[in-house]
Amino acid sequence: MTHILSDWARAFLREDRVAVVSTLNTDGSPQVTTIWYLLQEDGTLIMSTPGRTQKVKNLRRDPRIAVCVGDERRSVSLYGMVTISSDQNVIRRDLEQLTARYVKEEAARVLALSLFLQEGRVALHVRPIKVTEFSLDQSH
Amino acid sequence: MTHILSDWARAFLREDRVAVVSTLNTDGSPQVTTIWYLLQEDGTLIMSTPGRTQKVKNLRRDPRIAVCVGDERRSVSLYGMVTISSDQNVIRRDLEQLTARYVKEEAARVLALSLFLQEGRVALHVRPIKVTEFSLDQSH
Repeated sequence: MTHILSDWARAFLREDRVAVVSTLNTDGSPQVTTIWYLLQEDGTLIMSTPGRTQKVKNLRRDPRIAVCVGDERRSVSLYGMVTISSDQNVIRRDLEQLTARYVKEEAARVLALSLFLQEGRVALHVRPIKVTEFSLDQSH
Repeated sequence: MTHILSDWARAFLREDRVAVVSTLNTDGSPQVTTIWYLLQEDGTLIMSTPGRTQKVKNLRRDPRIAVCVGDERRSVSLYGMVTISSDQNVIRRDLEQLTARYVKEEAARVLALSLFLQEGRVALHVRPIKVTEFSLDQSH
């Protein structure tokens, strides 16, 4: 179990949300995109993306990644290094978990998984080493 | 009128959404937080934040900023340099527009504006020089 995430942040990250990840371009500028994610029991975030994307090129050169999940009133930002895997078993297992989380209807989920597996995907795993939490509410 | 944003992106950015902004820490790593934003007619994004925040410290040192607005299926990423203003008239005008967008109930909006004006805020203006759009849908 992770201890870096509060109970509140863990529950927040398990809601129906999408993350924004920031990586670093060659000139040091930030690059940002949305991505599906899943928080595992051990505190690792798993994500999946085609290996040809700019974010993967950036992360192969500089593994520092920032991940932000939030809405109008609350957010959780997570920082760490990414591990990139091309292991087909890991990629398939992660995609099964991600499509189970994000694609509610079974036929669509089977189709999405099939399409994703054709894309030359890689698995991204982030174990946060720093977390910041923000809320406009006083309730936590 | 801006020409860098497609009609689709412009409409998307005007929906009820929050942005994630990425700035650069002293060590070059990315920093990420959510922020309220408003797309102006001229294509500038306006945002407001307390002047003491890490993102403002970062932006005073390196004005490169990345802004991402998205959900499970679509996103728009915007890149440019930020202009930081401490002009009280600009700060108030921007905050009036931002609270009008994000705080629906009038009494709460008046209170939010009053609290925000006590925070030593700065106005952040971003004119995007590069935009990327993403959608899982085929409809645009």
